Amino acid sequence: MRKLINRQWRVARYPANDEPMSSALFEWCETPVPQPQANEFVVKTIYLAPGPALRGYLDPGHAPFFGNVPLGEVMRGRGIGQIIESRHPDYAVGEYFVGSLGWQDYSVQQPRGKEFIFSTKKISNPLKPLSLELGILGQSGATAYFGLLEAGRVKPGDNVLISAAAGGVGSAAGQIARIKGANNVVGLAGSDKKCRWLIDELQFDRALNYTSDHFDAELSAAFPGGIDLFFDSVGGDVLNTALAHLARHARVALCGFIATDYYPTAAAGPINYRYLLYQRATMQGFIVFDYWERFTEAENALRGWHQSGELKLCEDVTDGLEHMPSAVQDLFSGNNYGVKICRVCAET
Amino acid sequence: MRKLINRQWRVARYPANDEPMSSALFEWCETPVPQPQANEFVVKTIYLAPGPALRGYLDPGHAPFFGNVPLGEVMRGRGIGQIIESRHPDYAVGEYFVGSLGWQDYSVQQPRGKEFIFSTKKISNPLKPLSLELGILGQSGATAYFGLLEAGRVKPGDNVLISAAAGGVGSAAGQIARIKGANNVVGLAGSDKKCRWLIDELQFDRALNYTSDHFDAELSAAFPGGIDLFFDSVGGDVLNTALAHLARHARVALCGFIATDYYPTAAAGPINYRYLLYQRATMQGFIVFDYWERFTEAENALRGWHQSGELKLCEDVTDGLEHMPSAVQDLFSGNNYGVKICRVCAET
Repeated sequence: MRKLINRQWRVARYPANDEPMSSALFEWCETPVPQPQANEFVVKTIYLAPGPALRGYLDPGHAPFFGNVPLGEVMRGRGIGQIIESRHPDYAVGEYFVGSLGWQDYSVQQPRGKEFIFSTKKISNPLKPLSLELGILGQSGATAYFGLLEAGRVKPGDNVLISAAAGGVGSAAGQIARIKGANNVVGLAGSDKKCRWLIDELQFDRALNYTSDHFDAELSAAFPGGIDLFFDSVGGDVLNTALAHLARHARVALCGFIATDYYPTAAAGPINYRYLLYQRATMQGFIVFDYWERFTEAENALRGWHQSGELKLCEDVTDGLEHMPSAVQDLFSGNNYGVKICRVCAET
Repeated sequence: MRKLINRQWRVARYPANDEPMSSALFEWCETPVPQPQANEFVVKTIYLAPGPALRGYLDPGHAPFFGNVPLGEVMRGRGIGQIIESRHPDYAVGEYFVGSLGWQDYSVQQPRGKEFIFSTKKISNPLKPLSLELGILGQSGATAYFGLLEAGRVKPGDNVLISAAAGGVGSAAGQIARIKGANNVVGLAGSDKKCRWLIDELQFDRALNYTSDHFDAELSAAFPGGIDLFFDSVGGDVLNTALAHLARHARVALCGFIATDYYPTAAAGPINYRYLLYQRATMQGFIVFDYWERFTEAENALRGWHQSGELKLCEDVTDGLEHMPSAVQDLFSGNNYGVKICRVCAET
């Protein structure tokens, strides 16, 4: 056991503005696996979940929720793995564990408070593939669930727009909107191929390519009576354009702003926020972590929908820990279909 | 009676972008007073209420609620006057009437549906001065009331920021926030003199000059724990700066955006809308007209607070119909203290 090699990506430097994620920011290390202390256990990473927030951990002053990863430390990242050694009575070898495993093969873990329930939990009988717990049954699904139900107050008959609809959260949000009785679910994506995928695979009513020269007119055609609920993870021009199409008493659920988050040169504010007044509409930000007390509710709903076939698995798997930096960059380049997953080793 | 002369301002042309309101946009006419038909009555204008919305009536494509005033027609405007002739059984000579009187001495009126209750009503026993009905007991007061209670969800202990605090709506909003138990009521204005007026006359806890080079730092000092409720009528840089000071679960009540409304060159969007996400905050637009079913509630509350001395009369009176164009422009130049009023003739 002690002879296992732990491959790691450690933070070597922080990126410049507009600099993409790449292996140039990290140092690849191979070290021994540390010994667990009392009440600790060792987890072998199976999958990691590349997410846009990871970029923020490298951006001094731009990690509002968890702070930066210090230089020289193992890069932070959520994943699911299997317990291979344990000195904690409640965590048995062979059980699965979702948590902040870091960009590495092995990590020493300990239980966390229940406010970490979203990102840290033991799973005795997971559904397969295990990556479901990082995606539609995990944080992506819960983000879509609470964003639609709470900030978005989704209701039957709503005409719903989802940006980044081919992404991990967006693909879940579109399906959940449909399950909740939305009338018209329209997804936005950055290529015609993705748009076709949204319609053919995920049963969106319509999908629009936001890079189209006719995007504004296409939104008008897709929403003749206006948008009742806009679930936005993109910001920038997409948000600004969509705001001008809100219906009376619309709700905008702000999930993120990947278009402008780390690209200050593109960061114009949405002057069409004025439509919030014209349409007596509401724009509300939300963070999935605020709802940890209701996680069981979300988990049960998501699992039920998945098992009944209403909520499809949408994953985009990159193989190999060595490709984690480019897997994260894929999210900013818009290359992924569904939840981005990095497979670090095969499921047992 | 038929020999009365009706002085009028008629719309001569629409302004260019960034062109201020002035008499150059209007034609001054003197015509006979028309004869009322059955169920009509003639109102003699006593006061008119210059408001920022008036500028929009001259801006093709920029009057989202009521549309433009056609060229050659009498300029639209709310006012209070006295009935001097009536062919309607419910409207007696000598009674007072609030409604869309237009920029003129005399208008022929008829009753409107109850959805116009805010802007059109008969008043048999008004408080004096009559201009109260155009200000804190009328649309300005009701706008502040519903904006704070509904979009702002004001609650005891709130730390409240009011922009355009020396304006008609803002001066009422600050006082109502205090009445509703806010902990810390801070007003924004464009001069140190106005700031002093807010503190000395209207009992704001603090007032900040948003033109200060240190505005951002002064907001930090005024809101060490962040802003719980921001009642904004200004938009532009003021909104953008304030958004970065929101507290967790803050509410932004959008009342207007006078800073950018007719000045497209200044119209940058608020990139700090991202703090709505960081702080799980809500920004909601509202329009006072949506609450007409609750007007009696607002009217009773406002009248009660005024009579008990908690809600002070704040008026800035310009004398003479001939000065209506410059009275409106005063609002955009930030020259007014409280509700802007144009006195067309003396109260009887």
